[in-house]
Amino acid sequence: MSNCKPYVLGVDMGGTNTVVGVVDTLGKVVNSAALKTRDYIEFEDFTDALVKACRRLMSEVGGNDLIAGIGIGAPNANFYSGNIENAANLPWKGVLPLGEMLNKALDLPVAVTNDANAAAIGEMTYGAARGMRDFIMITLGTGVGSGIVVNGQLVYGSDGFAGELGHTCAIRDGRQCGCGKKGCLETYCSATGMARTAVELLSTRQDASLLRDLDPAAITSKDVYDAAIKGDALAKEIFDYTGRIMGQAFADFVSFSAPEAIVLFGGLAQSGDLLLKPIREAMEANLLPYWKGKVKLIPSALKSSESAILGAAALGWKAQ
Amino acid sequence: MSNCKPYVLGVDMGGTNTVVGVVDTLGKVVNSAALKTRDYIEFEDFTDALVKACRRLMSEVGGNDLIAGIGIGAPNANFYSGNIENAANLPWKGVLPLGEMLNKALDLPVAVTNDANAAAIGEMTYGAARGMRDFIMITLGTGVGSGIVVNGQLVYGSDGFAGELGHTCAIRDGRQCGCGKKGCLETYCSATGMARTAVELLSTRQDASLLRDLDPAAITSKDVYDAAIKGDALAKEIFDYTGRIMGQAFADFVSFSAPEAIVLFGGLAQSGDLLLKPIREAMEANLLPYWKGKVKLIPSALKSSESAILGAAALGWKAQ
Repeated sequence: MSNCKPYVLGVDMGGTNTVVGVVDTLGKVVNSAALKTRDYIEFEDFTDALVKACRRLMSEVGGNDLIAGIGIGAPNANFYSGNIENAANLPWKGVLPLGEMLNKALDLPVAVTNDANAAAIGEMTYGAARGMRDFIMITLGTGVGSGIVVNGQLVYGSDGFAGELGHTCAIRDGRQCGCGKKGCLETYCSATGMARTAVELLSTRQDASLLRDLDPAAITSKDVYDAAIKGDALAKEIFDYTGRIMGQAFADFVSFSAPEAIVLFGGLAQSGDLLLKPIREAMEANLLPYWKGKVKLIPSALKSSESAILGAAALGWKAQ
Repeated sequence: MSNCKPYVLGVDMGGTNTVVGVVDTLGKVVNSAALKTRDYIEFEDFTDALVKACRRLMSEVGGNDLIAGIGIGAPNANFYSGNIENAANLPWKGVLPLGEMLNKALDLPVAVTNDANAAAIGEMTYGAARGMRDFIMITLGTGVGSGIVVNGQLVYGSDGFAGELGHTCAIRDGRQCGCGKKGCLETYCSATGMARTAVELLSTRQDASLLRDLDPAAITSKDVYDAAIKGDALAKEIFDYTGRIMGQAFADFVSFSAPEAIVLFGGLAQSGDLLLKPIREAMEANLLPYWKGKVKLIPSALKSSESAILGAAALGWKAQ
């Protein structure tokens, strides 16, 4: 950490969009730029465009002498190696040496981690987990990601891939997961998993629902939310089912690291009590006695448009 | 840690026996003494006897000026408070300020933790996990205990109770556990859980087995082992079943902290491939692709009679 430099550069790389921004010590995004990740056929074309964007943003704030480091959150990124390894939702396959390329091109220290870990660092530095030394970040999106903080440190494990709680088993021999396993938490509790539940219930049941007006193949978790707040019973049941499975899983996560809080991030996390209530009930019912009533369940306190970049930026302060 | 003192005092407190010993820097138990935990009606009577034993052992090696600290492993003991809290298998109820009492009586720094964490520290300091920064210790006894090491540190969590993997859910709505929940891993995979499986299979099935010669109420995991090595098919099936449930659970533990190894401790852990093979198969089948074939599964390298006291002693070096 460079104490005298006022800025870091944060890069939030996603399967669709990549956002870059200069962030100050208070967590203010000073300027930013966006790239369409899929516009680049070769990975090198992408990094060239990314480097160009970084240079422009840094020169706008006074040059790269004022930048303490670069933090990057990217899918399947490994903290130890700085590489992206076999990311399913990026257009380039294999091992991508993202950290090394940016370090060489920009002559600044670079730290890389996966998107859920970046979100956890952002939450710890600027958000709902400030001051916490033990918490678990759960990101609810296309998949279920997680960033685990123990003793104030991100858990990277022996190989840099720790914290794949979306791929713990929720239901033995349950739904087929993209990872090759069956019954993974994310097949039920991601936004996509919730849409899967909707399609399942609509096809096996007969009761009326606002969701029946929609094309089943196109139903999203947002549609389920919209129907549920209008009082649709089936939509509420989908939230109850999703929350119950999540709460049961969370109770097991608590047995592992006894976190002070579980922080939920992503669009679904903003569903309020529709989701939080069934999660809390199922979690409490499955906790050991001394944890009952003690583990906080809180939605992220960061604007979703900024949190990933803030997390990546926060990691930049520690880049060496 | 006091560099110039050659010894620590380790206390392994169990529901039946309590063993105290002076241990040197190389992990040699120099002398030791044992107490019957249940011989003392009041907790104060027990600590009086324990203090007396400690004084005698310390004077034998040259006095307490040569002792760097005292480490204690005890059921339901909390590292942060130094207290034993509501231990089900001790004769005294409520909160027992063990750490504080020994610190006052012996004027030495004291560190307290639960028995599974003490075993993990012992394994890391003197045993199979030397040099590892990320591993999980699983103790198989009356229950299933666990000690989790991340970044070279024991995971205590926000309240000191982290690492209760024996109470993660193995089978939803499964067997009733002593903790009040259902389907906990320890109801299937502890020595006691394995005996439960034996009784269940013997009562629901008709096939011949050496185990049918025994009183069902008195069958132990040792009996199952003895029958299995004689080739008894039902006994082998009990090992397969136990191992499969354990391996499935271990795969989820790997998703959490990506350990280099899972170390197994306790009598059952010495069953060799009878248990390790089905564990390994089920674990591998349930791991994410990048962990397949990478996580070691190893039995403890410490003599079971010494490991708990060595673990407690190792903690003593860090007592302050």
